[in-house]
Amino acid sequence: MTINIKNFFRSSKKISKMGDFQELKHIEGVQVSAVSANLYKNGREDLSLFYFPGGANYAVAYTKSSIVSESITWNRENTKNNIKALIVNTKNANTFTGTQGLDSLNDVSKILIDSLNSVEAENGYQKSKIKDLLFASTGVIGEKFPVEKIRKSIPSLVDNLRINQNKLIWLKMASAIMTTDTKPKVAYSEIKIGDKYVRISGIAKGSGMIAPNLATMFSFIFTDADISSVILNKYLNKVLTNTFNAITVDSDTSTNDMVAIFSTQKIKSKKLNITTSKEAIKFEKALETVCLDLAKQIVVDGEGAKKFITVKITNSETVERAKKIAFSIANSPLVKTAIAGEDPNWGRILMGIGKSGEEVDRKKITIKLGDFVVAEKGKISENYDEEKLKEYMKWDAILITVDLKQGKEEYECYTCDFTHDYIDINAHYRRS
Amino acid sequence: MTINIKNFFRSSKKISKMGDFQELKHIEGVQVSAVSANLYKNGREDLSLFYFPGGANYAVAYTKSSIVSESITWNRENTKNNIKALIVNTKNANTFTGTQGLDSLNDVSKILIDSLNSVEAENGYQKSKIKDLLFASTGVIGEKFPVEKIRKSIPSLVDNLRINQNKLIWLKMASAIMTTDTKPKVAYSEIKIGDKYVRISGIAKGSGMIAPNLATMFSFIFTDADISSVILNKYLNKVLTNTFNAITVDSDTSTNDMVAIFSTQKIKSKKLNITTSKEAIKFEKALETVCLDLAKQIVVDGEGAKKFITVKITNSETVERAKKIAFSIANSPLVKTAIAGEDPNWGRILMGIGKSGEEVDRKKITIKLGDFVVAEKGKISENYDEEKLKEYMKWDAILITVDLKQGKEEYECYTCDFTHDYIDINAHYRRS
Repeated sequence: MTINIKNFFRSSKKISKMGDFQELKHIEGVQVSAVSANLYKNGREDLSLFYFPGGANYAVAYTKSSIVSESITWNRENTKNNIKALIVNTKNANTFTGTQGLDSLNDVSKILIDSLNSVEAENGYQKSKIKDLLFASTGVIGEKFPVEKIRKSIPSLVDNLRINQNKLIWLKMASAIMTTDTKPKVAYSEIKIGDKYVRISGIAKGSGMIAPNLATMFSFIFTDADISSVILNKYLNKVLTNTFNAITVDSDTSTNDMVAIFSTQKIKSKKLNITTSKEAIKFEKALETVCLDLAKQIVVDGEGAKKFITVKITNSETVERAKKIAFSIANSPLVKTAIAGEDPNWGRILMGIGKSGEEVDRKKITIKLGDFVVAEKGKISENYDEEKLKEYMKWDAILITVDLKQGKEEYECYTCDFTHDYIDINAHYRRS
Repeated sequence: MTINIKNFFRSSKKISKMGDFQELKHIEGVQVSAVSANLYKNGREDLSLFYFPGGANYAVAYTKSSIVSESITWNRENTKNNIKALIVNTKNANTFTGTQGLDSLNDVSKILIDSLNSVEAENGYQKSKIKDLLFASTGVIGEKFPVEKIRKSIPSLVDNLRINQNKLIWLKMASAIMTTDTKPKVAYSEIKIGDKYVRISGIAKGSGMIAPNLATMFSFIFTDADISSVILNKYLNKVLTNTFNAITVDSDTSTNDMVAIFSTQKIKSKKLNITTSKEAIKFEKALETVCLDLAKQIVVDGEGAKKFITVKITNSETVERAKKIAFSIANSPLVKTAIAGEDPNWGRILMGIGKSGEEVDRKKITIKLGDFVVAEKGKISENYDEEKLKEYMKWDAILITVDLKQGKEEYECYTCDFTHDYIDINAHYRRS
């Protein structure tokens, strides 16, 4: 059903290594738990808890949709800079659930905080308050929020909290937040700051309703570095543009998405709080690597995807123009179906450029598929070789490059092809 | 493969009658011809000529794409207000064909005008000049323009000109301009102005790459009314918004599209040239009926379409907002696949509203599927009946209404569902 990761790497050395090959270490100050609240009625783990006994600074980015879930509404009303927990449910989006949805979150919060407080009393931590947590909900829109099932599962959720994580535990957590995903998505990076190691561990979910400005997508990133919420927010906004906001599966934007980063403040380094320091730049790069890795995993697992597509616009006058053209191509159903059919139909790429409405000089632009120039100087390339291109189109990772020859800016975005399986998954989504 | 027109009408009385049931009369001053230039290599008619021996005033709207075909470039360089002919080829878009594409049009024009002049000499008409014609090309982008085949076919194209049209002839012309269409698209209207009848006859093609601002779409409309080019342009721009610019099949915009209206000036009525006169309003309404009819036929014949979808936004503060929300829903692959699956997944409609980024009050909006309220007051409707909705979703024409309850403006757009057949048609388009 999905892209064969082995072929994927064989065919595209440029794509960075993904989750499968990575180390994933413990992040001090995070405890995790996942149980089945029977939301999916098949025994799978569908309710997760990330608990920060000593509190965590955090930053979060939400969907740009003008209609959002009650869970996001609840979080937004929460103006705390430091929180104790993140609770994630699947199967139900808690969107358009009216007062029932919002009241349910208050209920769940009370019970969860009470339960955590009894643990905290034992361990001498500071007591948590009702507003000390964030919610994340993903699943079907408009169905009653399953508050009873979730309430009942809280004791076991808290009982199962694990102080230490390893790769298997992170994969388990990444699995527990999945909906139509076929694979858990994890990424990890560590950097040396002075004589200490700072760790960044991330998980993500999402495979449809994926478009810039987040999508039906969650990503939760944890670091043991000691960074303030204000600075975390700066890091997050810097890396979003070229990572989670650079992917699209189907151009649809969800009501529920969020990317959050949590700092457990265990590894002290003042320099990480000065964004211009060389340490901060190192941290930002590591964070970007984790986010880009997760973002690409989401595309690879795009609903029905069989091919990973990179659209790169070079030599643009502005980044904004490059971005608009890149997404105009990446969101085109005609481009995506041609790639599914392994057809080097570059005329559709040209259509995608034109459809953006952005000014281009058709006599200057060069279009490439992989390393092959297909069109230049206002016409098909003189070296155009349909047979070689057909071979290339069989690859699992396809690179489309458009050189505008009008400036020095560039932008790259990522998408997947559009197949029968996308239709199958989405024609009957609510029945699954 | 496509919507069954019979069921379609049974299930949706609100949709206006389409081509099949209409009268189509002769338009005085137009001669037509269609031949096979062997562009498709299967003997079908693929090259058409519309000839106005006495000349015709005209107005034309082109695609908003920033990359257009050489045929459009040629037309745009042509600043004449009155022309003698329109020549239409299929199979080749004449886009990104460089100088070969543009030079070819000069060649074809010379030969055609010479050939027409010999006819004109016989009949005493004014001689035509090389710039007295418009080109329209549709088909694959970037392939060499088949100038030789077209040149060779010009004598038979001119020999076959017919002075009189009837319904069968119009259907033949509409068939000759088709690409992936499965049905010819024709529409007709006549109005009485004083004691004379004014006729409007239109044909159209298009079924994929259809989005607002025209798309891979042609429509050619002919009237015997005597209207100046300037006024024709006003009429055309007035009716486009709610007709050809209100449809979308796949959100992709083509490099080649045009809608043109030609006036053969045979029926004199000064009042049609004063756009505020009651006669002009009557004419505009008739023109809009013809255009809307053709536009809806394009959607019904959308690539792989099995259902016709109307998205209606009511009580908006502005038309602009209503339009943005309507297209955000109509272009959503998730909405379109849900409808293909006959799933009343109204959460996706909600997602479409939110994705537009337009301001809405989620506690005020009402979402309806057909006559059924599915969501209101920020949650699922208390009368929500899944069984009844599932019955409704089996219909061939689905109406989505979103009442924003914030103003008095409205906008309606039209699309089709997203099926396996769309993928099949588009994954291997160039091979067909």
